[in-house]
Amino acid sequence: MSRTPDTWIIAAQCPSRLGTVDVLTRFLKEQRCYITELSSFDDRLGERFFIRAEFRPETDFDGEAFRQAFDPRAAEFAMDFELTAPGTRPRTVIMVSKADHCLNDLLYRYRIGQLPIDIRAVVSNHPDLEPLAAWHDLPYHHFPITPETKAQQEAHIRQVIEETGAELVILARYMQVLSPEMCTLLSGRAINIHHSLLPGFKGAKPYHQAYEKGVKLVGATAHYINNDLDEGPIITQGVEAVDHTHYPEDLVAKGRDVECLTLAKAIGYHIERRVFLYANRTVVFA
Amino acid sequence: MSRTPDTWIIAAQCPSRLGTVDVLTRFLKEQRCYITELSSFDDRLGERFFIRAEFRPETDFDGEAFRQAFDPRAAEFAMDFELTAPGTRPRTVIMVSKADHCLNDLLYRYRIGQLPIDIRAVVSNHPDLEPLAAWHDLPYHHFPITPETKAQQEAHIRQVIEETGAELVILARYMQVLSPEMCTLLSGRAINIHHSLLPGFKGAKPYHQAYEKGVKLVGATAHYINNDLDEGPIITQGVEAVDHTHYPEDLVAKGRDVECLTLAKAIGYHIERRVFLYANRTVVFA
Amino acid sequence: MSRTPDTWIIAAQCPSRLGTVDVLTRFLKEQRCYITELSSFDDRLGERFFIRAEFRPETDFDGEAFRQAFDPRAAEFAMDFELTAPGTRPRTVIMVSKADHCLNDLLYRYRIGQLPIDIRAVVSNHPDLEPLAAWHDLPYHHFPITPETKAQQEAHIRQVIEETGAELVILARYMQVLSPEMCTLLSGRAINIHHSLLPGFKGAKPYHQAYEKGVKLVGATAHYINNDLDEGPIITQGVEAVDHTHYPEDLVAKGRDVECLTLAKAIGYHIERRVFLYANRTVVFA
Amino acid sequence: MSRTPDTWIIAAQCPSRLGTVDVLTRFLKEQRCYITELSSFDDRLGERFFIRAEFRPETDFDGEAFRQAFDPRAAEFAMDFELTAPGTRPRTVIMVSKADHCLNDLLYRYRIGQLPIDIRAVVSNHPDLEPLAAWHDLPYHHFPITPETKAQQEAHIRQVIEETGAELVILARYMQVLSPEMCTLLSGRAINIHHSLLPGFKGAKPYHQAYEKGVKLVGATAHYINNDLDEGPIITQGVEAVDHTHYPEDLVAKGRDVECLTLAKAIGYHIERRVFLYANRTVVFA
Repeated sequence: MSRTPDTWIIAAQCPSRLGTVDVLTRFLKEQRCYITELSSFDDRLGERFFIRAEFRPETDFDGEAFRQAFDPRAAEFAMDFELTAPGTRPRTVIMVSKADHCLNDLLYRYRIGQLPIDIRAVVSNHPDLEPLAAWHDLPYHHFPITPETKAQQEAHIRQVIEETGAELVILARYMQVLSPEMCTLLSGRAINIHHSLLPGFKGAKPYHQAYEKGVKLVGATAHYINNDLDEGPIITQGVEAVDHTHYPEDLVAKGRDVECLTLAKAIGYHIERRVFLYANRTVVFA
Repeated sequence: MSRTPDTWIIAAQCPSRLGTVDVLTRFLKEQRCYITELSSFDDRLGERFFIRAEFRPETDFDGEAFRQAFDPRAAEFAMDFELTAPGTRPRTVIMVSKADHCLNDLLYRYRIGQLPIDIRAVVSNHPDLEPLAAWHDLPYHHFPITPETKAQQEAHIRQVIEETGAELVILARYMQVLSPEMCTLLSGRAINIHHSLLPGFKGAKPYHQAYEKGVKLVGATAHYINNDLDEGPIITQGVEAVDHTHYPEDLVAKGRDVECLTLAKAIGYHIERRVFLYANRTVVFA
Repeated sequence: MSRTPDTWIIAAQCPSRLGTVDVLTRFLKEQRCYITELSSFDDRLGERFFIRAEFRPETDFDGEAFRQAFDPRAAEFAMDFELTAPGTRPRTVIMVSKADHCLNDLLYRYRIGQLPIDIRAVVSNHPDLEPLAAWHDLPYHHFPITPETKAQQEAHIRQVIEETGAELVILARYMQVLSPEMCTLLSGRAINIHHSLLPGFKGAKPYHQAYEKGVKLVGATAHYINNDLDEGPIITQGVEAVDHTHYPEDLVAKGRDVECLTLAKAIGYHIERRVFLYANRTVVFA
Repeated sequence: MSRTPDTWIIAAQCPSRLGTVDVLTRFLKEQRCYITELSSFDDRLGERFFIRAEFRPETDFDGEAFRQAFDPRAAEFAMDFELTAPGTRPRTVIMVSKADHCLNDLLYRYRIGQLPIDIRAVVSNHPDLEPLAAWHDLPYHHFPITPETKAQQEAHIRQVIEETGAELVILARYMQVLSPEMCTLLSGRAINIHHSLLPGFKGAKPYHQAYEKGVKLVGATAHYINNDLDEGPIITQGVEAVDHTHYPEDLVAKGRDVECLTLAKAIGYHIERRVFLYANRTVVFA
C-alpha cells in the first residue's frame, strides 16, 4: 500500500478483447519496469476491461517518452490510459459551506502528509471557515450566494478552479445545488459526500425523516459529481449503527463521523488512481 | 444477557408523566422481585415512555396474581404492560417460498436452543423446503398460489395461524405480497426481512438495479409487517461491503448472509420483549 | 442521547440486594424528578449492582440538598453515587508526545462542542504539538524527559494536574510509561488509548510484529489507567480490516483512524457517566 | 466474483525479479486465454512475488498441455504455479467434535452450492453430529479418543484422509490438539478456526478469561494448521462487539456466529486459490 518514492502508476481501460493485459504488461517489461501491484478486472456484462499497475523503473525513466511509446499500442485496443508520476499531488480546490467536520478532517490528513493533494484554495458561500483555512496557510474565497446571484457566484468559483488549474474539486459539505453547467464542467473530477439513509429519503431534513422512520443505521456515500447531483457514480460508502436514543441532532452528529471517514477514503482512492468511471458506475481497486 | 431459569420479564409503555418508573419499580420491590436488568427511555419528541425489566422473584411468585395486582396501578398511568414467564416460547409459524437460507439459519438456532420459539408450522407457496422442515420434525403446509387463488391461499394460511394459535409469524423470505387484510391481521406480530440497498431501489430485481448503480454496500432490514408491506417499523438493520466484482448474483449471495443474521437478531429482540412499537417506529432495548 | 439543558445524571453502584433500584427511583419520584433514561444491571457473578439515570427536575432543584437527602438512603445499601449537574464539563489535562492524530481529533470535537470537557492544559514531553494547542488557545507545557529526569518530569506533570484541579486526564498517545505512583494517582480518572492486535504482541514495534504475522485486523483499546499500565479496565475497543498490502507503516496509519474514534468514544462515555469501574473491569451503559 | 463455467484459475509465486508478470500474461495471450480478473503483489520486504489470474480460453484448451508448456518458462523464474480447472471441487474431510455450529453452516453452504467442495467424510471424536452428516448423505467416522489412544485415533483419521484423497481438511471446531506429525502432514491444506480475543488469552476457558477482563469485542481467526497449532498463518479474521451483559456463555454464543462466517470465508478464499502461503503468513487476494 505504501510505496517507494520511485513508484509510478498506470491506469487504463478499454473494451474487452484478447490481449488487453498483455499489451500493457509486455510493454512494462520491455521498458524494464518492475510491477509491484497489479489489478485488472473484466466486466463481462459491460464488456469493459480495467487495469491498474504500480511499477518501479529499474533503469532511467522518462514519463513523456513512455507515454509516446505506449500510445500506438494502446490505440490498437482503444485503450485510454493515464500515467502518474511518483509524488504527484493533484491541484485541488475544496468547497465548503458552514459545516467544518469534513474540512477539518481533510486538512488534518493533508497536514500530516496522509493526503497527497496540493490544496490551492478553499471556496465557500459563507465566511465561517476562513480561520481554519488560514491556520493551514490556505487561501479562502468567500463567495456569498443568493437565488439572484447564483450564476455570478458560480462564475467566481469557476474562475478559482480555472486559475488554480484544479484537477480535483472536493465538495466537503458544500450545501448548494450546483447548476447543470457546473456539474458538467466538474464531471469526473469532483467528489461529493452526502448522507445515505436506509430507506432513502428525498427532500429536506433527511435526518428528521430518518428519525421519524426509526432507522437503525446511518450512512454516507462519496461519489463523483455528474449532472444528476446526488446520484453520481458511487466511489465508496460507510455506515454506522444508531438506535432510538438518537434524536435527529444525534443522527446528524453520527453522520459527521461517517462522512469524514468516507470522504477521506474516496479521495485516497481517487488520488491513487484506483477509481475508474464507466457507464455511471465505478470500478475501484481498493 | 443469558438469564437464570427463574427470570421474568416485564415490558411496558405509557404517556410521559412523573412517576412512570416508580410505579413499576416500587411494585416490584413490594413483590420481592429483584431487578437484574432494567432499561427505560422517554421519547421527548413523542412524549412516550418505555420500560423493560428482567427480575427474579425472591419468594413464591404467581404471574396471574402479579398481573391483577399491578393492573390498577398501571391503569393510573395509562400503561400497557406485558409480563413474560421464564421459559416462554411463543407459538410460531414460519412462512417461506423457495429460498431456504433464512429458514436453515432459523432452524439451526432453534435446534440448538438459541432461539426459544415453539415452531408449530412452516407454510409455503412452494413444496421445495418440505425436506428441511421434515428433518426438524416440523409440519409443512404447501399452499400454492396463483393470482386467482390468492384470497383462498391466504385463507389457508390464516387457518394455520389460527389453529396453531401463532403468536409470532416469521416471513423468512416469503416472496408474496400479503393482502391488506392479512397485513392488518398480523400487525405487530409478524416479522419480515427484506433487502435494503443504498440508494433505495423500487420495483423488480433490486439487486440488478444496485449492480447497475455500482453500490458498495448491501444490507437487510428486519421489520414488523404493517399495512405498508415493506415499510413497516424497523427492528434492526445489517450491512456488508461489496465492490465491482460482485455481479448481481454475487450481491444476492452476499445479501443472504446479511439477511440471515439480521432476521435472527430481530427475532431474538422480539422474543425477549426488547422491542416496543409506537407511531410506526420502534424502541429497541438491545 | 442528546439531552435538554436541565438534565441531571446520577450514577451509582452497590452490592446486589433487593431494593437497589427502588431506593433510587422512589427518591427521584419524591423529589419530582422525571427520569428520561434509565439503565441498571446486576452482575450475578460479581454480585454487584449498577444504575444510571438521566432526569429532569419538574420543580426547583438543589443538587447539594439532593445529595444530602439521598445520602442516608444510599448508605443503607452501601451504595456509592455520583450526581452530575447539567452542563458539567470536567477539568481536563491532555498528555501527548509527538503523534498528533488523537489530539487533533479531540480538539476538533472540543471546538465544535461535541466533547464537553474543560481543557486546562496540554502536557507533552516534546515541543512539537504546541502550535496545535495554541491555535485552540490552550496552554501547552513542554516537560522533556530523560531516564534521569523521569521522577522530576512526572512531578511537573503532577503539579499541572493539581493546579488545574484536573478531574480527567487523557493520554492521547503519550508514549512514556508512567511510574506506579503516577498510575495510582490517576487511577479511575485517566484514559489511555493503545493498539490492540490479534493475536496480542508484547514488546517493541507491535505493528512490525503484526505485519510479520500477517494479521487481517488492527484495533485499538481505550482503557483506564491502573497500576498495570496497558492492562487497565477496558472502556471500548475498535477494529479495522487490513490485508497483505499493508506494510508496517500502513498498519500504523490504519491504527490512527481506529485510535481517534475509539478514544473519542471512550471519553464520551466517561463524561456522560456511562462507565462504572469494578473489579478491574467496566460496566458501560452505552 | 461469480465466474462463467469455462473459467480457469492460475496462481503462482516466485522471488521478485523483472518479468514475473510478463512471463505469465504473455503466455496466456499466446494460448488465447482472456484474463477476466488479475491480481499481483510484490512483497518488497519479503522480496517475493504473487500472482493470480482467472481466464477464459477463447479456443480449445487442454490443461495438461498448458501445464507442460508453461513449466519451462516458470522454471526460469523459480515460479511455483497451480492451475485449477473450472468446476474443480477439492476432496474434503471435515473434522468436528461436539459443537455443530460450524458444521451446520458449512453443510448448508455446501448443499446450496455456495461452497464448491467435495466432502468425502466427516470425522469426529464424538458420535453427536452423525445425524447432521447423515441428513446430508455424508459418511461419518466416529473415532473416540483418550490420552492412551491418541496415536491410534490419529492413525484412523490419517487413513480416512488418505483413502479419500483429501486435498482439504477443515477443522470445524475439532477440539483436540493434533500431534506434531499430524500438523506437518496437514500443513498448508488444513484450515482451523479458533477464537481470537483482545487481549490474547492463553490456556483454558478463554471466554471466561475474556469475561473477567471485560472485553468489548470477541473475534475469530481462520488459519492454516502448521506445527504451531493455533498460531498458523492467518487467512482471515472476524470480530463482533459485546458488552458487560455478556456472561461467559453469551460470549461463547456470540463467538459462534463470528466463527461460522469467518471459517466459511476462509474456505471460500482457499478454494478459489486466493490464498498464498509464504514465510508463515499469507497473501490473500480477497
